[in-house]
Amino acid sequence: MNKEELLQLLHPMKLIGLSGNPALNEKIASILHKPLIETAVHHFSDGEIQVNIGESVRGCDVFVIQSIQNPVNENFMELEIVLDALHRASAHQINVVTPYLAYSRSDTKTRSREPITAKLVANLLQITGMDHLIALDLHASQIQGFYNIPVDHLHAMPLLTQYFIDNGIATKEDNDLVIVSPDHSGAKLARNFAQYFDAPIAIVDQRGARYDAETHDVIGDVKDKKCIIVDDLIDTGSRISSSTKSVMAAGAKKVYVAATHALLSQNATEVLNELPIEQIIVTDTIKHNHYPDRMVRMSVDLLLARGIDYVYHDRSIHQIYDEQNEIK
Amino acid sequence: MNKEELLQLLHPMKLIGLSGNPALNEKIASILHKPLIETAVHHFSDGEIQVNIGESVRGCDVFVIQSIQNPVNENFMELEIVLDALHRASAHQINVVTPYLAYSRSDTKTRSREPITAKLVANLLQITGMDHLIALDLHASQIQGFYNIPVDHLHAMPLLTQYFIDNGIATKEDNDLVIVSPDHSGAKLARNFAQYFDAPIAIVDQRGARYDAETHDVIGDVKDKKCIIVDDLIDTGSRISSSTKSVMAAGAKKVYVAATHALLSQNATEVLNELPIEQIIVTDTIKHNHYPDRMVRMSVDLLLARGIDYVYHDRSIHQIYDEQNEIK
Amino acid sequence: MNKEELLQLLHPMKLIGLSGNPALNEKIASILHKPLIETAVHHFSDGEIQVNIGESVRGCDVFVIQSIQNPVNENFMELEIVLDALHRASAHQINVVTPYLAYSRSDTKTRSREPITAKLVANLLQITGMDHLIALDLHASQIQGFYNIPVDHLHAMPLLTQYFIDNGIATKEDNDLVIVSPDHSGAKLARNFAQYFDAPIAIVDQRGARYDAETHDVIGDVKDKKCIIVDDLIDTGSRISSSTKSVMAAGAKKVYVAATHALLSQNATEVLNELPIEQIIVTDTIKHNHYPDRMVRMSVDLLLARGIDYVYHDRSIHQIYDEQNEIK
Amino acid sequence: MNKEELLQLLHPMKLIGLSGNPALNEKIASILHKPLIETAVHHFSDGEIQVNIGESVRGCDVFVIQSIQNPVNENFMELEIVLDALHRASAHQINVVTPYLAYSRSDTKTRSREPITAKLVANLLQITGMDHLIALDLHASQIQGFYNIPVDHLHAMPLLTQYFIDNGIATKEDNDLVIVSPDHSGAKLARNFAQYFDAPIAIVDQRGARYDAETHDVIGDVKDKKCIIVDDLIDTGSRISSSTKSVMAAGAKKVYVAATHALLSQNATEVLNELPIEQIIVTDTIKHNHYPDRMVRMSVDLLLARGIDYVYHDRSIHQIYDEQNEIK
Amino acid sequence: MNKEELLQLLHPMKLIGLSGNPALNEKIASILHKPLIETAVHHFSDGEIQVNIGESVRGCDVFVIQSIQNPVNENFMELEIVLDALHRASAHQINVVTPYLAYSRSDTKTRSREPITAKLVANLLQITGMDHLIALDLHASQIQGFYNIPVDHLHAMPLLTQYFIDNGIATKEDNDLVIVSPDHSGAKLARNFAQYFDAPIAIVDQRGARYDAETHDVIGDVKDKKCIIVDDLIDTGSRISSSTKSVMAAGAKKVYVAATHALLSQNATEVLNELPIEQIIVTDTIKHNHYPDRMVRMSVDLLLARGIDYVYHDRSIHQIYDEQNEIK
Amino acid sequence: MNKEELLQLLHPMKLIGLSGNPALNEKIASILHKPLIETAVHHFSDGEIQVNIGESVRGCDVFVIQSIQNPVNENFMELEIVLDALHRASAHQINVVTPYLAYSRSDTKTRSREPITAKLVANLLQITGMDHLIALDLHASQIQGFYNIPVDHLHAMPLLTQYFIDNGIATKEDNDLVIVSPDHSGAKLARNFAQYFDAPIAIVDQRGARYDAETHDVIGDVKDKKCIIVDDLIDTGSRISSSTKSVMAAGAKKVYVAATHALLSQNATEVLNELPIEQIIVTDTIKHNHYPDRMVRMSVDLLLARGIDYVYHDRSIHQIYDEQNEIK
Repeated sequence: MNKEELLQLLHPMKLIGLSGNPALNEKIASILHKPLIETAVHHFSDGEIQVNIGESVRGCDVFVIQSIQNPVNENFMELEIVLDALHRASAHQINVVTPYLAYSRSDTKTRSREPITAKLVANLLQITGMDHLIALDLHASQIQGFYNIPVDHLHAMPLLTQYFIDNGIATKEDNDLVIVSPDHSGAKLARNFAQYFDAPIAIVDQRGARYDAETHDVIGDVKDKKCIIVDDLIDTGSRISSSTKSVMAAGAKKVYVAATHALLSQNATEVLNELPIEQIIVTDTIKHNHYPDRMVRMSVDLLLARGIDYVYHDRSIHQIYDEQNEIK
Repeated sequence: MNKEELLQLLHPMKLIGLSGNPALNEKIASILHKPLIETAVHHFSDGEIQVNIGESVRGCDVFVIQSIQNPVNENFMELEIVLDALHRASAHQINVVTPYLAYSRSDTKTRSREPITAKLVANLLQITGMDHLIALDLHASQIQGFYNIPVDHLHAMPLLTQYFIDNGIATKEDNDLVIVSPDHSGAKLARNFAQYFDAPIAIVDQRGARYDAETHDVIGDVKDKKCIIVDDLIDTGSRISSSTKSVMAAGAKKVYVAATHALLSQNATEVLNELPIEQIIVTDTIKHNHYPDRMVRMSVDLLLARGIDYVYHDRSIHQIYDEQNEIK
Repeated sequence: MNKEELLQLLHPMKLIGLSGNPALNEKIASILHKPLIETAVHHFSDGEIQVNIGESVRGCDVFVIQSIQNPVNENFMELEIVLDALHRASAHQINVVTPYLAYSRSDTKTRSREPITAKLVANLLQITGMDHLIALDLHASQIQGFYNIPVDHLHAMPLLTQYFIDNGIATKEDNDLVIVSPDHSGAKLARNFAQYFDAPIAIVDQRGARYDAETHDVIGDVKDKKCIIVDDLIDTGSRISSSTKSVMAAGAKKVYVAATHALLSQNATEVLNELPIEQIIVTDTIKHNHYPDRMVRMSVDLLLARGIDYVYHDRSIHQIYDEQNEIK
Repeated sequence: MNKEELLQLLHPMKLIGLSGNPALNEKIASILHKPLIETAVHHFSDGEIQVNIGESVRGCDVFVIQSIQNPVNENFMELEIVLDALHRASAHQINVVTPYLAYSRSDTKTRSREPITAKLVANLLQITGMDHLIALDLHASQIQGFYNIPVDHLHAMPLLTQYFIDNGIATKEDNDLVIVSPDHSGAKLARNFAQYFDAPIAIVDQRGARYDAETHDVIGDVKDKKCIIVDDLIDTGSRISSSTKSVMAAGAKKVYVAATHALLSQNATEVLNELPIEQIIVTDTIKHNHYPDRMVRMSVDLLLARGIDYVYHDRSIHQIYDEQNEIK
Repeated sequence: MNKEELLQLLHPMKLIGLSGNPALNEKIASILHKPLIETAVHHFSDGEIQVNIGESVRGCDVFVIQSIQNPVNENFMELEIVLDALHRASAHQINVVTPYLAYSRSDTKTRSREPITAKLVANLLQITGMDHLIALDLHASQIQGFYNIPVDHLHAMPLLTQYFIDNGIATKEDNDLVIVSPDHSGAKLARNFAQYFDAPIAIVDQRGARYDAETHDVIGDVKDKKCIIVDDLIDTGSRISSSTKSVMAAGAKKVYVAATHALLSQNATEVLNELPIEQIIVTDTIKHNHYPDRMVRMSVDLLLARGIDYVYHDRSIHQIYDEQNEIK
Repeated sequence: MNKEELLQLLHPMKLIGLSGNPALNEKIASILHKPLIETAVHHFSDGEIQVNIGESVRGCDVFVIQSIQNPVNENFMELEIVLDALHRASAHQINVVTPYLAYSRSDTKTRSREPITAKLVANLLQITGMDHLIALDLHASQIQGFYNIPVDHLHAMPLLTQYFIDNGIATKEDNDLVIVSPDHSGAKLARNFAQYFDAPIAIVDQRGARYDAETHDVIGDVKDKKCIIVDDLIDTGSRISSSTKSVMAAGAKKVYVAATHALLSQNATEVLNELPIEQIIVTDTIKHNHYPDRMVRMSVDLLLARGIDYVYHDRSIHQIYDEQNEIK
């Protein structure tokens, strides 16, 4: 009897997929060759959510996949209520997988009397009996420290950079490639991205009173360069918009965008469609009905499926990016 | 220097009113002769809520009034986020006032693998630094025990019964008055209501397979009687509907309805409008744009204002129903 | 190697039976084919309790059976002290089985400055390292929500109703059967009981000032009927007494009583013996030296043994009432 | 306005006396010129305790005096239930005063699978919202460390030694005085007691197999000496008995006994009455109906009253033994 | 009686200064016109620390000032032990002031199986009963979110920028001023600093394999510019060294350095002395025996004194930078 | 498949040895036939410690061995940081083994406003996710009660007494053997030690003002006797020094010393070297570079290795002293 069989007897793996992004849930489950267990989630007309889990989870290691995207608070409470039900139903270990975890940008007090909602979310999840969190590209890596439980923080960057390589858009040998950060906070992310191509970086200097200006100064040389603007998420698209215009104004040749989470709130799709961007490479952590033109969505299904598989089998998570580590 | 002045110096009272039921917030504040402090609550297009409290609360005793009504999860998270902000802003004592507190009906597991969401809500509120809860007519009084912090549980029944007395609808001397519980769980509530009028009770026997029937048996004598159907809340109106039809079928002369919380979800207004009910007496814990015909809304503003005033001044809460205890 | 053998190797099941109801402990252990492990519990002359557990429990899944009956506080502290000892002795999982759990009626504040002792008991048990509770017919199902750990709440009602069926006292076809609730709070319990026989219910209307009266009004028709008065527990017998007299006064033909917990405190036995009741069907959750005449005690041994067995083996507890699920 | 008046306005002091030792409660209250507030404590016939506190404690600093003596578990649970009620009734600060705190001897594991009940008691008290503990002569001073809340640990030794001085039994100039520890664990206590008289000590060597012997070796010189056997408590009297016999056998001239807590369980009174002891000096922390002959009971009333007074007024507790620090 | 006098009566302010940076403690105390209370801290020869607080703190609001600098672990444990003593001595509120708080850079997991020591530190401080933290320029503002208690996060930047203005080194009108971030992570800090002068920024691009190189690329224009390299701390000086060399190599005219915390570990002094830097402006959060040449130390004494004063008096902390808010 | 193999598959045992006493770590690992896993611990020049654990511990039962000896605070924080890393790296169970655990003597408040550092240490360790503690000869056995997690408290006394027997120094038949406690607190330890030889005890009476005297009274007969002075630890050697001189002055024939922990701080080695002691028998819980003459160090390696082995395999720890229970 091997470890796989032992675990399966003692603590069977069960997958639950919630309402945030059902298509991604299905893809992950399919890779893991496991069904999503039937979970009745009713959103009643009075605004309350009721949950009933369709099969026994006693002694099981449960993985709950929920993309905490718009409607954020509905999806968050849905997750909380399912966690309560699982805990009371004697699940052995409760793991939460959040392709997108809202409120991560509210990670510090920028003014007096503001909340730190990312910490609040951490506290609320932990009180409900979550044992483990698998998250993807949190806005700040410090958010791991908001949790006392183990957090496996996965990154979509290898996936995004690979797209550029596979499609011949960017290579290590490129001389005209510049990785652009849309603001100061993102300089480190851009630098990390640039490592894949041994490329220089530039920063769009969105400053103070002029924050709302159409274009900003660009620090670093983008003239006649192929620019990849890198961000962790695209919300209303305004930051991408001003960055694109700024680098174009500074003489950039071509503009690409890469980001993990495509929130696309408000009129982001229209904003993006009107920009002279070649391609926008994002992942499928957020579900929408329509997407901007020229948007390419790489699936994080295999990455998250591996995360689940590795956590379940106690395999070291940093090997997750090795291609040969397949799920049988 | 008296206690009032001392408290005002050491721990000034501050009122915050959130989005659930702003009109009620205003009325409470007006009775207390205190402004609601400016609190910026933004619901962003990506679904997140951001909060900024407009003035210093350092060392203050803050009372946050939030009716956790539809949209329940939005209003609940709004409250949580404000609590986090208050706690981090060094408020001295954080009191929450919930005219209506959703999820109170989810107070037990009725089937396997269900959550107990009322307890989840209690845990989530307590973890965020709430010191004290003032609630009104919780679905079950046991919910007080879900909290380890002090809970002041107020009742609207004196207000509702007074309406019937003041308007000559029912008196202690009535011989043709029966108080009706719409189901078995409500028998105790009906009995308490009946005490005010020294009246008998009857119960609508909504049983098993026949639960969805148009009418049910009525236990107790309602023939040629004036019936007041008493419930803690009116949700979709279906329970009131079948109860009304049942007592009419059993020969009731007139039907009144009394309930604290008028959720009026789905098509409740239409349902109620079509019923042969004389009057529906409720409170204003829930805000709506339109109300059913013949609905009378008694305000709980004075009751909750007194609750706040008594808690702030350490006065014994059970004196709250004495008429002479006015707020200066 | 199957799951049974695996568990036995990794986390052997150990049973501990405490002083509350030793006879029931023995019967449960016998059904499970497991000995109760030797546990020395000394009640010293100075009032203190000392405990020593007779064999190693390191890594074991321990089930402690304690009926928290009179002397309630002695039995409760005995349980607490054993839990402390088990926790410090590195037990793997500590499960508590309470055939009767005192203080469940103290589940809400009925007046100012009262405790909620059922919640206190929950807090005290949880702080001592209890992982799981198996309880039987708690006074209110909301008490499950007083716990953050999983609670399996079992019901003796199938056992009690079966007695009536097996002995030809009541059937689904009976036309003269009425299930009676002794007060308003019990209406729901009576309704559930009545479902088994497709019978109507009646309620004894014990109201206000007349609470101490010999007889009360009965709501619902009991004339010439065979009445089964249903309650969760029989304490001093006074509620059964007034209910019996009330339904007899209202013309009942025959009276039976069914209840889970027979506390029989004060002079309950004398009170019950003098009543014109055919039979009183209870369970053996409470041990006594003498019992009232015409009392039939159904054992919950198999029910609780199954509860233990299912929890240990991670089997879904709602299958517990299926007859074919035997313990091997 | 001085601090006294301020406190009285903001957080009035309220005293509650529980069932352990009502006479001592009264004496303490009398010294403090404060009434004990009416607290209804019912011990029901089914073994449960119900509590109702007779007046509002909202915002008050409450001091609950309970000697946790035989019946230990009843008294302990009574205290716990009162603490729950006080906490839910919004008391500002809850202080517990335990003239005697049972289970203090269970402060370590002496064998495998034993509990550490003194720590259990500490955990149970702290979970119930106690803010502060005032205790008297705990069996081991390490027990303070079982608590995370502040503990003021008072000592009766100044009171006991003063008796010997005031009655001319022992002085600093005595040449024939020896302080005797009845076993090895008590050597340090004896040494501290001896400091008051600048006297040598001796130890009764109760060892191993011979533990039950009538007499034991005495280490140190007691021949023709006046011996004061010092212990923290007298339980069944057997340790005092063997010690007395041992020192007499070793040639002691006269024997006195001094101890804080006179539990006097089992037949302690008879045992002590038969011993050739001059006087037994104890305190009144434990109430009994009868006392042994030659027992002198010094009251700790003033000591505990001062403890309460100092804690309430934030005065440094170590000044408590200064005679001039009277309570006004 | 005003609030000041009230607080002084009820909860007197007490200051404790620990070993990290005694000179700064003294300066803060002097501004507040309060003595540091005598606190005996012994570092024994066996490595243990023993603490005794010299006067009563019962009911007091205590502010403990400790710069957690080298020897970091000694200073941290000294603080922890003092907190334990204060808590057990019944202090009313325990506030910690950390001019420097070590381990703040360990705020995330950069590799598998690393700790998040800044979070560990937060957990350890909170468990010991700290009620409030006043910190200065934490490495990442997210660290506030590691705490559930209120944190007042002060900034030395107004102090540092003022130096440049006061000494005519930099003005808003400067055309040749560039603020330089020594790496990507610091871009936001540099941007904030630049706001004071309406200046552009540049970033030293310390990348990957070339991290240890003598000089790096500089993004942004520094040619013939006056550069102020801005960082939160100076540790071994190597980052300042490579940044200085990089901007000089890129044609910078003059180099200044501004940083809050001057750790100056290893041979930092020598390293800095050899660099062609005009001036190094730091604060006095860290004490040393010797300092590099051309280092100017601005005292944070007034800033921290105001922090203490505002927290004690419940004044809004964001007014702290207004010059007119003096301490009386 | 047996339990050994099962555990090895599910939760492999991993050993980590920290800086306190590496030689002892190695010996324990060698007995267990397990390597110490590579753990990079850097003490940086700024005083901070950084840790990286060299291999995956996901799902493993980890035993961290750390002697918390001088430098106490460095070693303690090193342990804390490793615990944080292990917890975040998803270790299954974290066990700490402390051959020596500093601060154990700070187990009570001896004066006002002192900390109870042994309890602080317990709280800090438990908050960091430690599941189990294996300790050796804590200063007071009550310290077990400072922990809520299971503590296995091992004793070196069998090892120390065996040395005397094996080397013919002391036997049960000895008539001239006396076991000496160096002060009153140690009388119980001496008595336990004496049980092995059926020997009498004596106590050095270090009292009050004369505490610093060269010699003290000896209670009990040591004239012409072979004395073994027994203590739990040797710190500066001053207590051993005065005890030795006291028993010599009282006519002792020969003096031996036995103690578990040889801290040897300050000039202990010189002090001990000058005393007329035959042999000093200690264990190797503390590492030093030099040892006093005539000091014999018995290794606790096998004892602690067995402790680890028994805990890992859920074997009852009290069998640990049976010789036949070898580790395979």
